[in-house]
Amino acid sequence: MTRIPVGLVGVTGYTGMELARMLAMHPGLELTRATSRAEAGKSLAQIYPFVRGTRLDGLTITEPDPADLAKACELVFLAVPHGAAMDTAAKLLDAGLRVVDLSADFRLRDPAVYAQWYALEHRHPGLIEDAVYGLPERYADRIAKARLVANPGCYPTSVILGLWPALEAGIISPQDIVCDSKSGTSGAGRKAAVGTLFCEVSDTFRAYNLAKHRHTPEIEQELGAVAGEEMVVSFNPHLLPINRGIHSTIYAKPKGQVSAEQVQALYEKHYAPHPWVRVLPQGSLPETRHVRGTMFCDIGLVHDPRTNRLIVCSAIDNLCRGASGQALACANLMLGLDLRAGLELAPLMP
Amino acid sequence: MTRIPVGLVGVTGYTGMELARMLAMHPGLELTRATSRAEAGKSLAQIYPFVRGTRLDGLTITEPDPADLAKACELVFLAVPHGAAMDTAAKLLDAGLRVVDLSADFRLRDPAVYAQWYALEHRHPGLIEDAVYGLPERYADRIAKARLVANPGCYPTSVILGLWPALEAGIISPQDIVCDSKSGTSGAGRKAAVGTLFCEVSDTFRAYNLAKHRHTPEIEQELGAVAGEEMVVSFNPHLLPINRGIHSTIYAKPKGQVSAEQVQALYEKHYAPHPWVRVLPQGSLPETRHVRGTMFCDIGLVHDPRTNRLIVCSAIDNLCRGASGQALACANLMLGLDLRAGLELAPLMP
Amino acid sequence: MTRIPVGLVGVTGYTGMELARMLAMHPGLELTRATSRAEAGKSLAQIYPFVRGTRLDGLTITEPDPADLAKACELVFLAVPHGAAMDTAAKLLDAGLRVVDLSADFRLRDPAVYAQWYALEHRHPGLIEDAVYGLPERYADRIAKARLVANPGCYPTSVILGLWPALEAGIISPQDIVCDSKSGTSGAGRKAAVGTLFCEVSDTFRAYNLAKHRHTPEIEQELGAVAGEEMVVSFNPHLLPINRGIHSTIYAKPKGQVSAEQVQALYEKHYAPHPWVRVLPQGSLPETRHVRGTMFCDIGLVHDPRTNRLIVCSAIDNLCRGASGQALACANLMLGLDLRAGLELAPLMP
Amino acid sequence: MTRIPVGLVGVTGYTGMELARMLAMHPGLELTRATSRAEAGKSLAQIYPFVRGTRLDGLTITEPDPADLAKACELVFLAVPHGAAMDTAAKLLDAGLRVVDLSADFRLRDPAVYAQWYALEHRHPGLIEDAVYGLPERYADRIAKARLVANPGCYPTSVILGLWPALEAGIISPQDIVCDSKSGTSGAGRKAAVGTLFCEVSDTFRAYNLAKHRHTPEIEQELGAVAGEEMVVSFNPHLLPINRGIHSTIYAKPKGQVSAEQVQALYEKHYAPHPWVRVLPQGSLPETRHVRGTMFCDIGLVHDPRTNRLIVCSAIDNLCRGASGQALACANLMLGLDLRAGLELAPLMP
Repeated sequence: MTRIPVGLVGVTGYTGMELARMLAMHPGLELTRATSRAEAGKSLAQIYPFVRGTRLDGLTITEPDPADLAKACELVFLAVPHGAAMDTAAKLLDAGLRVVDLSADFRLRDPAVYAQWYALEHRHPGLIEDAVYGLPERYADRIAKARLVANPGCYPTSVILGLWPALEAGIISPQDIVCDSKSGTSGAGRKAAVGTLFCEVSDTFRAYNLAKHRHTPEIEQELGAVAGEEMVVSFNPHLLPINRGIHSTIYAKPKGQVSAEQVQALYEKHYAPHPWVRVLPQGSLPETRHVRGTMFCDIGLVHDPRTNRLIVCSAIDNLCRGASGQALACANLMLGLDLRAGLELAPLMP
Repeated sequence: MTRIPVGLVGVTGYTGMELARMLAMHPGLELTRATSRAEAGKSLAQIYPFVRGTRLDGLTITEPDPADLAKACELVFLAVPHGAAMDTAAKLLDAGLRVVDLSADFRLRDPAVYAQWYALEHRHPGLIEDAVYGLPERYADRIAKARLVANPGCYPTSVILGLWPALEAGIISPQDIVCDSKSGTSGAGRKAAVGTLFCEVSDTFRAYNLAKHRHTPEIEQELGAVAGEEMVVSFNPHLLPINRGIHSTIYAKPKGQVSAEQVQALYEKHYAPHPWVRVLPQGSLPETRHVRGTMFCDIGLVHDPRTNRLIVCSAIDNLCRGASGQALACANLMLGLDLRAGLELAPLMP
Repeated sequence: MTRIPVGLVGVTGYTGMELARMLAMHPGLELTRATSRAEAGKSLAQIYPFVRGTRLDGLTITEPDPADLAKACELVFLAVPHGAAMDTAAKLLDAGLRVVDLSADFRLRDPAVYAQWYALEHRHPGLIEDAVYGLPERYADRIAKARLVANPGCYPTSVILGLWPALEAGIISPQDIVCDSKSGTSGAGRKAAVGTLFCEVSDTFRAYNLAKHRHTPEIEQELGAVAGEEMVVSFNPHLLPINRGIHSTIYAKPKGQVSAEQVQALYEKHYAPHPWVRVLPQGSLPETRHVRGTMFCDIGLVHDPRTNRLIVCSAIDNLCRGASGQALACANLMLGLDLRAGLELAPLMP
Repeated sequence: MTRIPVGLVGVTGYTGMELARMLAMHPGLELTRATSRAEAGKSLAQIYPFVRGTRLDGLTITEPDPADLAKACELVFLAVPHGAAMDTAAKLLDAGLRVVDLSADFRLRDPAVYAQWYALEHRHPGLIEDAVYGLPERYADRIAKARLVANPGCYPTSVILGLWPALEAGIISPQDIVCDSKSGTSGAGRKAAVGTLFCEVSDTFRAYNLAKHRHTPEIEQELGAVAGEEMVVSFNPHLLPINRGIHSTIYAKPKGQVSAEQVQALYEKHYAPHPWVRVLPQGSLPETRHVRGTMFCDIGLVHDPRTNRLIVCSAIDNLCRGASGQALACANLMLGLDLRAGLELAPLMP
């Protein structure tokens, strides 16, 4: 089979690294360009020794050049920081490329909300119209036709998949939701910083950005669309001393009478067509290791009549399902491949 | 100075280990007996090589014998599992000893609640009357006079200290509280078990016992006493891949208007007489490493008007403040020593 | 393509778990039986939630029954402890099955050496003759024809691959070799034991079994065959607070004049036909993460004329290359599949 | 008791952090100045929240000013990088201060060796004469009288203490020694760098600087002085995914006949006057956690007649015994305090 050529702009972060891992094994896509201003000229194997002996071994890192990318690729994964991504995306689209943007720049439909949470005016608000939110379970058809996909944030992926069935069915109150989320440290990026040194993260735990994390409006936008009303969500992230994984514990209040069995049945039915979302049996709770390196989102449900709460636990791999794997799933759809091509991976255990 | 002789019944668990560490340095207490049925006859240094070269180096482990303990000690720390502790405590008290029990057996005032949550009839309900809940900030005077102290649970310590000022001042609703707590693995004990093997805990994260953890009634009892009404709390624990530390993120709803500054001032004033509780400045959040190996409870406060929530983050060391250090503080009070004797330790960083 | 049916006897350990992971993705093999006396009757997904949603989801664990296995499988992976494995292997062979034994029972050619190091008389010495040592780079042809493969130990795999070229070329002294090896904790197995609890392994490091580890005679046997003389090796293992990975630092003394460039060229030429062994460029050293979850063995070479030593660093994944992946490679050969079928995996990073 | 005022120049690294921890509890020393160009003006508690509620809570960080330091302190700990330290030390000494330098600048007696290994001309070779190597077990008398102490490196401390008795007794060959050392990540410092990010260090292991680490000449100098001849040592460091701790596995060759019992007796007698060095009983091996946060150096001895090797395992805490604690011990001696003042700490377990 001839593989479809794709490019990666911004190879040096953890999302770029994860794309490299997955594209080294993908049956239908071939990475023909990997770009980085800082590392151009080196071979990919020099900065990522782990790709030696894989299909990516011979690749040389280049400067990001839209014309060159357009010649060499049918689609580009854009893995540069928000703020920078919007300009690069515009250039890549102008050059005729299709783009899966892993940054936050095209996720929020309302540029005013973007400006408020990211403290930055959006310079390409017109492109927001074109962008499709890249959650395959929700928007597969539109993703397939999109020229620009806004790949979802890691935390939002875990929270949206966790609450979608309950909100859609109207069994919980949309206005009294608390998300207590915990993320592995790869979510903090691969920049040199004292705060994410091994000795500052290992053997400790802390919350950060409580009530003001930038993934909040993304969660509210997508869940609000499900609920059919504007939502305000209390979203609160924490930093885990692990490499990969997000675990969200979501506290909601049932509206009216509902039993654990009903909730369980609702979720199982809802996700039956979506095999990457695994609704665990009653009594089981997700663990981040059980989804390590995969597209799985594991969901565990606890109904607590004593405190009148529905607790949803949702676990994903923040780099795979929460970023690069999801980007690949979108690319699969955009390029006419099977959604699951190159993504049927078993979790690495232990 | 002559040190007061004390004993330790049940030396092989992590709370026993932590008591050994602290008693190796305590200026006013001397560990004269350490007992374990399984390890009797060995020297303490054989099972705990880390005590070589400390004051505890020469100690030999003995069988637990109330008469012998009564001769050799003025007070005994009881570090055996709940269920077993109540019988041993009764025998030690009968022998004339004062007891700090680190188990859950005497924490709940109502034996029916004990029976319900621990699935066990209390065999010494009469002793519950005598027991004082060993949280020094709340019960110092009564602890000083007690012959039996029920040392608080680790999670309850973090949650009670986190909510006490707000509940006492009546600024939050007592009936709509969610505690999302995360504990280091030493909290799971030192028993051989597949579930707490390194490879089952490392590089992963999960919730457990959601809505049904046995520390729930203890939290409700103590917070209810503060609030002056019966409380129902949604308490939800998680397992962290770290050795020590508990971090509780507590979500409460303000009653009426309250500002971040008011809450901050309230907590600072409340804990001014209690130097182990460190109310962090606005904008700071606690980290478990900042309290590692110490009696500190660090509290960070976030008022979020957008979602109308007061979020309290509370961090302790589960083994020191949450168990053995707190037991020592109680013993200090019971034996007429300064509350802080042997407990003015700086956190181990990193 | 029809997949060849295979079985797994002893599914509950980490080597069984890793086989399950890899067989969930293998294009040419189908796991039709997974046995465990303790867990028979449960679904595989009950004990390994990570297999939900994979091809192994529906599999039920059975009692190990040679007749049933012979009906359902063409080959069996035997993942039970040494001592027990030899008897089970005999029964499986008697039933007509081909067997890849992951234990140590058939690795040593001399039953007297086995008896000496394992403190156990070999009960099936006749079968040792039939067993082929399952290191594909060395014995591919014989493995292909074997009915019984003795899958190599994890440490020996790292040491043998690290020294083979130098010993074969005669550039180092065979009688003055020190191996300082470090293994992730999964190497210690999945048995409930205090010594491998998270809190006993995390944030610490130690040596164990210095100069007396049971992998020593296996290393000496295989390296001796390369060197053409009996060898005595100082092999010394250490325990790492990581899940997976073995790193061996091997200290040898060059015989006569040799340059770093010569050694490098020798190794590169030697391993050119064996793509799983990656000889890193001069100045690069291996890291266990770069081989995580894969069959790669990364080798870094340092020639130190100042101390007249050749230092070889060798890194593998102890569960994949050092156990289950290697077993699969042998099975591929035995069943006429491509050696690399199902094993072209990119390392999980980070 | 009045405490003696001391200063700390360079507070922001891990050695500065560890000095802060220990000085927060020291009975005889008072930290009156803590300096940092980058952080001057902040309170110490702002950069180190863990010191809140300790004696150091009120301290403000200042610019490093020799005149001010000389007024406020009797002795200064110098915790800045090598290269910079020599100039600062000269200024502090000129101002009349006594200095414990934690850098490498005054450890090597021969400026030519310094220039060779550090690629830097020594700018104050005259001061090297005055400097005393701060290993208390070897140089206590000279340390007590020194105005400049060169605090030993972390690796050298572990190796020198490990080999001293055997070399002094002449039972091993001084010319055939291999040190395979492993260090926790705090040894790499607290600078923002991709290579020591959590996700680059966690769950992996690697060697670095094999045969060329700068601690090599320091080890050779001090061991050579013991052996009475020039030595060449193969010293090879590795990076551990732990915060604190160094474990050195040292391979030596016995000269002539020697038994395990003789070696054990030799070491026990040698270190009997030095209680911080704990010679473990035969059959026991050190673990870094058993010395965590303390001055202990644990030594385990293995005599292997099969390969004719003496293997010495030596474990220290790289930040405490290997840096800041040792600096405090030197200061204790220099200021007439008891060597062990403020340093009788029990290891933090687990």
